[in-house]
Amino acid sequence: MLQHAAMQRILPIAAALFLASTLLTSSVRADEGQWPPHQMPELKATLERLGIAVPVDQLSDLTRHPMSAIVSLDGCSASFVSPQGLIVTNHHCAYDSIQRNSTAANNYLAKGFLARTKAEELPAGPNERVYVTESVRNVTAEVLAGIPPDLGGAQRTRLIERNSKALIAGCETSRDYHCTVESFHRGLDFYMFRQVMLRDVRLVYAPSEAIGNFGGDIDNFEFPRHTGDFAFLRAYVGKDGRPADPAPENVPYGSKDFLTVSAVGVKAGDPILLAGYPGVTSRYKLPAELRFALEHDYPKRVAHSKRDLDTIAAATDGDAEAEVRYAATVKSINNRMKKLQGLLDGFARKDIVAIKDEQLAAFLAWSATQPQAARYTALIDELQGLIERDQRLSEQEFAASLLTASALLGTASTAYRFAVEKAKPDAERDPGYQDRDASFIKARFERLQQSYVGKVDSARWLSALQAYGKLPEAQRDPAMAAVVWRGTDPAVRLDSDYAGSKLADTAERVALLQRSASELQASTDPFVQLAVALYPLQQQLRDQRRAVDGDLDRVIPQFMQAVIDWRRSLGQPVYPDANSTLRITYGTVDGYAPADGLYKGPFTTLQGIAAKHTGKDPFDAPPEQLQAIAQRRFGAFVEPTLGAVPVNFLSSADTTGGNSGSAVMNARGELVGLNFDSTYESITKDWYFDPAITRAIHVDARYMLWVMSELDGADDLLREMRIVYPAGERHEAR
Amino acid sequence: MLQHAAMQRILPIAAALFLASTLLTSSVRADEGQWPPHQMPELKATLERLGIAVPVDQLSDLTRHPMSAIVSLDGCSASFVSPQGLIVTNHHCAYDSIQRNSTAANNYLAKGFLARTKAEELPAGPNERVYVTESVRNVTAEVLAGIPPDLGGAQRTRLIERNSKALIAGCETSRDYHCTVESFHRGLDFYMFRQVMLRDVRLVYAPSEAIGNFGGDIDNFEFPRHTGDFAFLRAYVGKDGRPADPAPENVPYGSKDFLTVSAVGVKAGDPILLAGYPGVTSRYKLPAELRFALEHDYPKRVAHSKRDLDTIAAATDGDAEAEVRYAATVKSINNRMKKLQGLLDGFARKDIVAIKDEQLAAFLAWSATQPQAARYTALIDELQGLIERDQRLSEQEFAASLLTASALLGTASTAYRFAVEKAKPDAERDPGYQDRDASFIKARFERLQQSYVGKVDSARWLSALQAYGKLPEAQRDPAMAAVVWRGTDPAVRLDSDYAGSKLADTAERVALLQRSASELQASTDPFVQLAVALYPLQQQLRDQRRAVDGDLDRVIPQFMQAVIDWRRSLGQPVYPDANSTLRITYGTVDGYAPADGLYKGPFTTLQGIAAKHTGKDPFDAPPEQLQAIAQRRFGAFVEPTLGAVPVNFLSSADTTGGNSGSAVMNARGELVGLNFDSTYESITKDWYFDPAITRAIHVDARYMLWVMSELDGADDLLREMRIVYPAGERHEAR
Repeated sequence: MLQHAAMQRILPIAAALFLASTLLTSSVRADEGQWPPHQMPELKATLERLGIAVPVDQLSDLTRHPMSAIVSLDGCSASFVSPQGLIVTNHHCAYDSIQRNSTAANNYLAKGFLARTKAEELPAGPNERVYVTESVRNVTAEVLAGIPPDLGGAQRTRLIERNSKALIAGCETSRDYHCTVESFHRGLDFYMFRQVMLRDVRLVYAPSEAIGNFGGDIDNFEFPRHTGDFAFLRAYVGKDGRPADPAPENVPYGSKDFLTVSAVGVKAGDPILLAGYPGVTSRYKLPAELRFALEHDYPKRVAHSKRDLDTIAAATDGDAEAEVRYAATVKSINNRMKKLQGLLDGFARKDIVAIKDEQLAAFLAWSATQPQAARYTALIDELQGLIERDQRLSEQEFAASLLTASALLGTASTAYRFAVEKAKPDAERDPGYQDRDASFIKARFERLQQSYVGKVDSARWLSALQAYGKLPEAQRDPAMAAVVWRGTDPAVRLDSDYAGSKLADTAERVALLQRSASELQASTDPFVQLAVALYPLQQQLRDQRRAVDGDLDRVIPQFMQAVIDWRRSLGQPVYPDANSTLRITYGTVDGYAPADGLYKGPFTTLQGIAAKHTGKDPFDAPPEQLQAIAQRRFGAFVEPTLGAVPVNFLSSADTTGGNSGSAVMNARGELVGLNFDSTYESITKDWYFDPAITRAIHVDARYMLWVMSELDGADDLLREMRIVYPAGERHEAR
Repeated sequence: MLQHAAMQRILPIAAALFLASTLLTSSVRADEGQWPPHQMPELKATLERLGIAVPVDQLSDLTRHPMSAIVSLDGCSASFVSPQGLIVTNHHCAYDSIQRNSTAANNYLAKGFLARTKAEELPAGPNERVYVTESVRNVTAEVLAGIPPDLGGAQRTRLIERNSKALIAGCETSRDYHCTVESFHRGLDFYMFRQVMLRDVRLVYAPSEAIGNFGGDIDNFEFPRHTGDFAFLRAYVGKDGRPADPAPENVPYGSKDFLTVSAVGVKAGDPILLAGYPGVTSRYKLPAELRFALEHDYPKRVAHSKRDLDTIAAATDGDAEAEVRYAATVKSINNRMKKLQGLLDGFARKDIVAIKDEQLAAFLAWSATQPQAARYTALIDELQGLIERDQRLSEQEFAASLLTASALLGTASTAYRFAVEKAKPDAERDPGYQDRDASFIKARFERLQQSYVGKVDSARWLSALQAYGKLPEAQRDPAMAAVVWRGTDPAVRLDSDYAGSKLADTAERVALLQRSASELQASTDPFVQLAVALYPLQQQLRDQRRAVDGDLDRVIPQFMQAVIDWRRSLGQPVYPDANSTLRITYGTVDGYAPADGLYKGPFTTLQGIAAKHTGKDPFDAPPEQLQAIAQRRFGAFVEPTLGAVPVNFLSSADTTGGNSGSAVMNARGELVGLNFDSTYESITKDWYFDPAITRAIHVDARYMLWVMSELDGADDLLREMRIVYPAGERHEAR
């Protein structure tokens, strides 16, 4: 402890001594950008300057190492780490799989899980999928084929949907493939992704929650962090090597590519690459959009989240069973609320609106010098008007979401819409309601069972209805409200709704998906009746959304093209906002100053776990871990510049939600960590990447290896992986 | 902001690059020790290695620069900064003086105060004193003269008191001098300090509380810190140059020496000297003493402080006037409680008891090898027994303090004791009850008016009596309790006590000091009656204290001599525990790691004030300050390694309570800051100096100068001081 503390004490002295020279030679790095692999050649100079040894051409090729080892878990990222389909991702990404296999008597969350043989590996769950991106194709021309450039409104949206569905249908040649068409630069470009979809996924190894979720919700978005947020899954296929439904006779997937794991690791200042599937960012949105979020949307959502949490707390109070069922919901609302609060705090700390205003002013100044100046001005004017329409509509959508905030009503509405769509030929159905989507809808209906209690659902709906009544009049939807109210006080009505419905029963819910629209119209279930009555109004709202989106899809690409032209004129390559597709980001292992006089990171160490340990959840380190730390059983995993085993570290890589589980690689493309969170000050990066304070939080591969070897005896897995140890370390005897 | 953040971001990279080499060449500094000036020659090699340019012989001479510029304010430290008696100290040390001169209409705390001319300088208060240490003399032989080495108990204490009083009487040749005899190494050595006592002190300049107390109680003991904790006083003397009672015709004191102020300042890694009057430390106490404090005394005091705070809150609730009167008391209890909690937290974080055990074991191992081994063993045994007696007695004293926890009762007891002592010849009276003490007692009686409300005092006493009733039986004092209870339920009795007493009236209180013991015995005032009744029991308790102290005074010096011999045998110079006498400490400008992955300091900057500003007290920076920061009007006060104006900084100097206002000097003895606090993690330093985390917090002289020149227009003061500016800066035009 002393050694470490003394070391940290020396840091700033060394820094001070060499500061002057460093200040003169170092430029501030801007590690901004979640880059589609095909853009990597544009970053050649940058990556070479950083010291990345993997050639950019190799990085841009999804069929080559290391990108062909990167996979998606639908909402999380992951990577292959052995030729036998072994996958490493975050503990929190495998959470559902661990929970599903746990019982009160045999709780794998609490004690961890390790399959000693492949036969012991457990089904991760019927809906778990591993997506291996096989190819990406620019399909802009096909998506926009037959659409007049000046066509807007719902018609444009419908045509884009139609063309996309046709492309997807052509691409999904079998159940082995999952294809998506994604819009880039808000409709400027479209790419189609073809992914092999592996449907038999199994749980291989997860440390105990006391390691995998050390710090829990308290440490969420926080640093210093000491979370061992990692777990291992394995993809299985049929004996023919093709994707197959889960079956005991399936065999491990022969992963063509996998990442080498580095036990040498990285140190402060080292470059890193990070590859995964970031969800959504809003970097190119206009100041008006940020203002709306900051001044109206986020505060409203924070307030409603608080109300919802209070409602759940009151409705589950003293009912342990109900509390457990809503634990995941509460956790998720808390997470969203902390993120929203982080956005509001971040905007209060730094005037990002002013920065966006400046950026727009700079663009306008440039555009005024261009031949198409008049067209740009008209474009911006039209866009501002459209954004206002979009905002009004999103307020209406929020009001509608309050009016329909019942899980049972939501189920009934989905079932009725599915029935209506089912009557059409598959290709003409709404996206999300085609045959390919049926199994996912059914899975959602089944999963509701784990997180539903009638009295709580009823209380949440009632509370939402009361909140609806307090919305400004302009934001309300009287027609929809009248249908929901049904001429009665909801406080009275709701009790009979829940008493009279059978939808709390899973079999009844799933059976709805077999019914035709007319059968559902004849149903006596109060929620089905309400869903049928609401359907035309909800369709209206969806049509309005299509109309606004269609107009945005007509105008925004022209604006984005202008922005790209402007940025390129400044010599800046332009990356598209995140859209859940495979991206590469790069950065440096680096701490940050969250406040004047305060500095965090870049590393935390094993000793910090012992220091944080209180014995109470979520700071309840396992005794054997504390003992190993006290005895300094550090194995081969000491970072020499720290004199300690690193646990988590920070980098300046550009990440967002969806990047959980992303491989963090060193200059040679070896796995040195997994991304799992970002710091509280970084939350505003969804709108604006501030290189001074934006830091992603990674679990160090050396901590993973230390836990596996020193605590959990996962020797077979260690042997299965290809691990690079520091020179001089002997590991043959393992 | 960006520049600064970017700079901080580069720090650890530079650090990492040079870490290996630094680790190999740097040794961990141990800047421990609050050294009496006469010991400075022992530190010659250390200070030279650090780069201190002031020769140690000069530092050890109180009649030479810079030590002759260092003064005491009785509880705070300060220094002369001009030849005209101008003194700089902390804002919180001048707080009473500022408050005393403030009215609701003219609130100098809120708006700050600046005397434009000397004529505008305000009386700091009738009890404000400036003490200039003139000489220090080893009087061990005189103090111990005629005391047999093996004499212990109350007799020893009485003889030490008698000899000390005689020395003081001989030293205080006039009212110009204040002399004290202080014990070093717990009775091993005695030194007599002769101080010139300047009695006319005036308030010259204080920034507004929004600067001088920025961060308030919330930031107390915290870092990053942004407090402008400085103020200026001036000492006045009669026209003959001798100390004089406050009078308009007095003239500024012609300070023989003063500190030059450096606007060049220090940077991370620079050495500093710090001189002042630290109060009390316990570095040489035995593990048994630490255990008692940690396991019994501190938790008890925290609990009783909390109870007292709750009682005050309830008793003042809704009564704004009463709240104001108890504000200072509440602040002081909170401060003490935070310090106690910091001690408990610190002991929980690091096993200091184990370290003390190891130190004792090492001493015992050494002592076993010495010729006097048997004597050492007997010594330790006897000391352990004495410590236990001391602890039992301190529990009894605590119980007695609960029984008498009424401010009015305390006043009556002091008055009665004063009357009893007054009947004796001055030289035979108890220390603190001699003629020389009368004016201080009177001042205390007067000051009570500012912080007393009957119903609150009564509530606090009642609550303390109830708490007494819950003490373990062995800790209670039934005889004293019987006297206090007077056969009635205190809850009933107290109302009539307060209703029947005139001591709430200041004139009545002060008049008590004129009464003889027999007059007071005849008083009908309930508090005086109770004081008279309690007196014999309190005398008993004081005699027991004298007996224990006398035994400790007989044994501890032998133990301390052995410890000193042991340390010297290891080549370690030994400093005595703090005892409110002038000390020098040294250190390095340096941050620290309060936790794994977290690093603080060493500097905060102006930008941090803007970042902390909320507009709400205590984070309510003045608008003109925010504007100057926004406009980057930094003047000559930018620290080049930061690119910003420093506000506060940390050093590894060894300080404690009483060091508030201490001069922080650079290698050449120029003033670069004022000490004003230490970090939360440092609080345990009173027992154990941990060089890794112990940091004192200083206000940077450049921030003081910036506030004076840029915000407050204190140009005359700036001209009066001798200021060294960075090369190239022009300031003649000021």
